[in-house]
Amino acid sequence: MKIIVDAYGGDNAPLEVLRGCAAAVEAYGYEIVLCGLEKSLRKLALEYDIPLKNFTFVEAPDIISMEDDPGSILKKKKNCSMAVGLRLLGEGGGDAFVSGGSTGALVVGGTFYVKRIKGIKRCALATLIPSTKDYFMLLDVGANVDCRPEMLRQFGIMGSVYMESVMGRTEPKVGLVNIGTETTKGGELQLNSFELLQQAPINFVGNVEAREIPYGECDVLVCDGFTGNVILKLTEGLASSLLGQIKEIFKSNMRGKLAAAMVMPGMKQLKKRMSTEEVGGAPLLGTLRPVFKAHGNSNAKAFQNAIRVAADFAGKGVIDRITESLAERSKEDDTQE
Amino acid sequence: MKIIVDAYGGDNAPLEVLRGCAAAVEAYGYEIVLCGLEKSLRKLALEYDIPLKNFTFVEAPDIISMEDDPGSILKKKKNCSMAVGLRLLGEGGGDAFVSGGSTGALVVGGTFYVKRIKGIKRCALATLIPSTKDYFMLLDVGANVDCRPEMLRQFGIMGSVYMESVMGRTEPKVGLVNIGTETTKGGELQLNSFELLQQAPINFVGNVEAREIPYGECDVLVCDGFTGNVILKLTEGLASSLLGQIKEIFKSNMRGKLAAAMVMPGMKQLKKRMSTEEVGGAPLLGTLRPVFKAHGNSNAKAFQNAIRVAADFAGKGVIDRITESLAERSKEDDTQE
Repeated sequence: MKIIVDAYGGDNAPLEVLRGCAAAVEAYGYEIVLCGLEKSLRKLALEYDIPLKNFTFVEAPDIISMEDDPGSILKKKKNCSMAVGLRLLGEGGGDAFVSGGSTGALVVGGTFYVKRIKGIKRCALATLIPSTKDYFMLLDVGANVDCRPEMLRQFGIMGSVYMESVMGRTEPKVGLVNIGTETTKGGELQLNSFELLQQAPINFVGNVEAREIPYGECDVLVCDGFTGNVILKLTEGLASSLLGQIKEIFKSNMRGKLAAAMVMPGMKQLKKRMSTEEVGGAPLLGTLRPVFKAHGNSNAKAFQNAIRVAADFAGKGVIDRITESLAERSKEDDTQE
Repeated sequence: MKIIVDAYGGDNAPLEVLRGCAAAVEAYGYEIVLCGLEKSLRKLALEYDIPLKNFTFVEAPDIISMEDDPGSILKKKKNCSMAVGLRLLGEGGGDAFVSGGSTGALVVGGTFYVKRIKGIKRCALATLIPSTKDYFMLLDVGANVDCRPEMLRQFGIMGSVYMESVMGRTEPKVGLVNIGTETTKGGELQLNSFELLQQAPINFVGNVEAREIPYGECDVLVCDGFTGNVILKLTEGLASSLLGQIKEIFKSNMRGKLAAAMVMPGMKQLKKRMSTEEVGGAPLLGTLRPVFKAHGNSNAKAFQNAIRVAADFAGKGVIDRITESLAERSKEDDTQE
């Protein structure tokens, strides 16, 4: 398995990227193709004693600064590490691409350089969100602010295939985010998407109200990118604000501090479960080859996880199966006509 | 102050409605006009020793059942207690109307029987949501699934006037729910609403990301009814699922149970703060006279609170001030033309 990695993606790049890549080589034996400034990366590796076994380098001379607009990075900086990596993946120079860089740039660049699966209207950014049960996949979480029903149908298919292939869920339950469970609920997008999802080759379980989302009854939840982004960020914000308020209660007096010590293991577990760090990042679904977004604040461990999940994404035939599922639907269409 | 009340709205009606009304008379000296079956309500009051001082009754013979569709209740059951009360309010038979019944029916009926303020495109359902700071008002939370930018501008004005007049906030901060803080973020609705909100006679502070919502920096947040409904219900669902998980940690062993006892007062306070019970309900904004939705699961105390807030809604000139603010904007329009 050969994974192309963006050396300069994320807040802790390039040092934690290097460490994460080396750890992935050590643990799983992958080959790493690192995009960036070879000389400076080699120097850093030497300085921090990071082994470069199984590494090859591809030169990416352009440097992205904080001032660059995510929407136009890949136009203005054609040879930045993300653009170079995506082009390389598009040309078949590796099995998957991982970057902790700008999400917006990755969506635009992934669609442009790696191209979409035949028939896929738009790529979706999919995120795994912790629930009281397990993780569920939410898509789209921001790649497409305005969506059409056919896009939501495809999101359902792509999410279902991913959760089955990569996350090992049997017949993943797919739900449509809506403002009520009745089939008459929602706007035009929800009403029309409901019908299309019902006909799709997936285990569609109907509308899901936002109140039920945290309980994780579904494996996949589909919605437009605006709603998905609101759900993702509100979940993060509320979990963090609530846990913060509980911390204040514990810290407020001696009894609280004593109580905190007594429930520390459980609380730590909960905090870990609510954190999105463990799953490494989010796949971009719909491209012809696997593109994987690592969290912007990834450390070495998170990059190692992201690389492992990206390799699973590549190795478990997700993209072939999405292509088949889309064809299955087209055949039905043909029959109906 | 004369408050019209729906005797049969809510899960605990009519007994808790009767009790709440009597408590409001006792505490604030209001007059109550109770819509329902007078004979049966008087019998119930006698049985439970509820004083009917300051009560008058208006007969409403139609009974709503669980099978009735909220969207058509008021068409099919023209003389149910909600329809009778709304008509009475529309005719000037009271200062405000309170119901714990179907939200959908109240929105439709409020618009139909009470009529809209001149110039208001659509009525909005506004809810107060607890934050780490205080309550903020979110609107619309479900009356209008699809919105136009002008509607969001009006939501901003109505929410601002309400929070200033009824909740005593000085120059309420009004934010637009969006998927980023930059002015270029969002879909067509957000981009166009941003411009209109900037020109409105309110303290508009710009886009607010969902991650920041729980921290309550704004007094008013505006969005379309689909997004608002998702935010409201996800907030409820997440708070309840997280507090539930923490309860499990406390209950899991003896140390946990001991710890729970030590932080009980703080945790109870937090739970109370996160609950929406305290604020009594949600105003329907945009009607010519005050319509107030009590929570469906209201008890006597909650009905008493709802009646008090509805009286404030009526007594503090909210609707006159909304009308003036809309005119202010129209004058500007005229000047510009």
